[in-house]
Amino acid sequence: MTTPEERISALEHRVGELEDINAIRRIHWAYGYYIDFNRAKDVSELFAEDGEVIFLSGIYKGRAGALRLYGTWFQNFFLEGGGEGPVDGFLLDHFQMQDIITVAPDRQTAKGRFRGMLFGGSHESRRYQPEGLPLQFMEAGIYENDYVKEDGVWKIKRLDYMMQWQGDYEKGWSKTVSHLQPLTECFPANPIGPDAIRTEEIRKTWPYRHDVPMHFAHPKFGALLAGEAK
Amino acid sequence: MTTPEERISALEHRVGELEDINAIRRIHWAYGYYIDFNRAKDVSELFAEDGEVIFLSGIYKGRAGALRLYGTWFQNFFLEGGGEGPVDGFLLDHFQMQDIITVAPDRQTAKGRFRGMLFGGSHESRRYQPEGLPLQFMEAGIYENDYVKEDGVWKIKRLDYMMQWQGDYEKGWSKTVSHLQPLTECFPANPIGPDAIRTEEIRKTWPYRHDVPMHFAHPKFGALLAGEAK
Amino acid sequence: MTTPEERISALEHRVGELEDINAIRRIHWAYGYYIDFNRAKDVSELFAEDGEVIFLSGIYKGRAGALRLYGTWFQNFFLEGGGEGPVDGFLLDHFQMQDIITVAPDRQTAKGRFRGMLFGGSHESRRYQPEGLPLQFMEAGIYENDYVKEDGVWKIKRLDYMMQWQGDYEKGWSKTVSHLQPLTECFPANPIGPDAIRTEEIRKTWPYRHDVPMHFAHPKFGALLAGEAK
Repeated sequence: MTTPEERISALEHRVGELEDINAIRRIHWAYGYYIDFNRAKDVSELFAEDGEVIFLSGIYKGRAGALRLYGTWFQNFFLEGGGEGPVDGFLLDHFQMQDIITVAPDRQTAKGRFRGMLFGGSHESRRYQPEGLPLQFMEAGIYENDYVKEDGVWKIKRLDYMMQWQGDYEKGWSKTVSHLQPLTECFPANPIGPDAIRTEEIRKTWPYRHDVPMHFAHPKFGALLAGEAK
Repeated sequence: MTTPEERISALEHRVGELEDINAIRRIHWAYGYYIDFNRAKDVSELFAEDGEVIFLSGIYKGRAGALRLYGTWFQNFFLEGGGEGPVDGFLLDHFQMQDIITVAPDRQTAKGRFRGMLFGGSHESRRYQPEGLPLQFMEAGIYENDYVKEDGVWKIKRLDYMMQWQGDYEKGWSKTVSHLQPLTECFPANPIGPDAIRTEEIRKTWPYRHDVPMHFAHPKFGALLAGEAK
Repeated sequence: MTTPEERISALEHRVGELEDINAIRRIHWAYGYYIDFNRAKDVSELFAEDGEVIFLSGIYKGRAGALRLYGTWFQNFFLEGGGEGPVDGFLLDHFQMQDIITVAPDRQTAKGRFRGMLFGGSHESRRYQPEGLPLQFMEAGIYENDYVKEDGVWKIKRLDYMMQWQGDYEKGWSKTVSHLQPLTECFPANPIGPDAIRTEEIRKTWPYRHDVPMHFAHPKFGALLAGEAK
């Protein structure tokens, strides 16, 4: 026999989980919007203190690592010396979609899969053209991220971006080898390098492919984490 | 000490807010689907009576304004005289994604940020080719919209579309200057013109860029409006 | 006068509906991710036992039909003999977005509209090139699906994919006639054919267009099914 109080408690948990899912989706969409406009500090503040980013098989640790990646690297290389906000003739659009978010039963951690599409490059009229960056390119990738609740606020614990392909606009993905290759040299030897290199397999980039395991159980089991499915 | 009645009331508010978010997302996705199929009347009925659309720095006021934009302009220009529904060889696909929706505490108003990608143009076999429209083009933009609840139903109060770039398919965004420029002449002098021109800065189009302020507070503050964050 | 028990019951129904919507969205996003990685069995298990897929005006019935489409056809044709998982130099990215989901009042059935964008093809360095498949192509389509709850778990009852256009990358959608045409021959005469052909209109493919009726009532009526709107 369920009492009204028990039913209320159950509802509070279920509503809390729905709110968690919305909050985490919001973080990832905000991440996309911040990168569009070169807002490295805002991106870094989405992370937990001990959060990390996996990018090109390198591990950027903590908010300092995130700032090195999205600030020192992205802003300096793309914007010729940094600064925030939009720059005439430069594009780094991060379209984000297809969210699958799974919250742990205690509502203190969660996992999320997302997908991003990137349209980037410089207008031909722009004076500064980043060296080695295609004039215009497309890219797609999948994220498998971990989240943690800190003082009641969700933060990114681990953002794992797995680039799927890149395509120079003029040639398309069938005739492009990724202009980005796995990272090999760490910071500080490489001033924009990661803090460590993944010890698992190095993920070779397009046209190579690698598996992108899904954190979630098959939906036939309901909304469980993969590890919980029978 | 919280009574069961207070807990129930709190839940009713929280569930209501989740339903509001879903309802507003639904409006924006429907907006995209209606434009795909040239349904100007359906688009206009998503707006509040005194709603408005900001497009190319022009302000289209009320449902009459929305009909002038999505009907008189879009349908007549794209479809050679109007009509609803799909037309062989014509494409105006409005892909919509990346929703960040923030509902005010009283649940009577809300703000929403979205992102759209547009793939449009005419097939080469189509007899009618709209003059001045590239044969095939891509476009991307960001929306920062206001919503209002009228008689329990959410409506668009203000749809602010900020085009980010356009690219002729043959050349790509790096070699395209937007085929659409800020509006300068109002209705009725311009039969498809807006009712007014923005008095704030005119938003020059690609390759120019302008800031696209975010209505939402940084997620580290939780799900607040920007003005509410400390 | 509403009792606390009645308020709790109403909340349980509303929260259940929000959970249903999330569960169905999750199914469709998972469908996209499974196809990306050639996981035909996983796709087929998203369907109810008596589910079906409409593809190119053909009807694939049951999980056997889904396996014939996503397995025998897709895997064999694209991957030269089948197998699951990613293949170097091959791309079949299924980007999914713009979900409008409507749950029936009894929460046992539901309808969902989604949109997909497909970027596919083979890298020029790949030894196997599927015959008749463009080297690199884009595609877009709209889904209007039916769902059913079986033993408390949502399943796809009917997946109706309506391709909107295809574009060879080199030429773009304005200069491409869809490389896929409506199906005409059934299984087993055609080993990858459907079990039946639609008896309603055959949907001619791009540059032809056809209407894509929306299951949902106009949002001005709230979140009802189209049949329920006044």
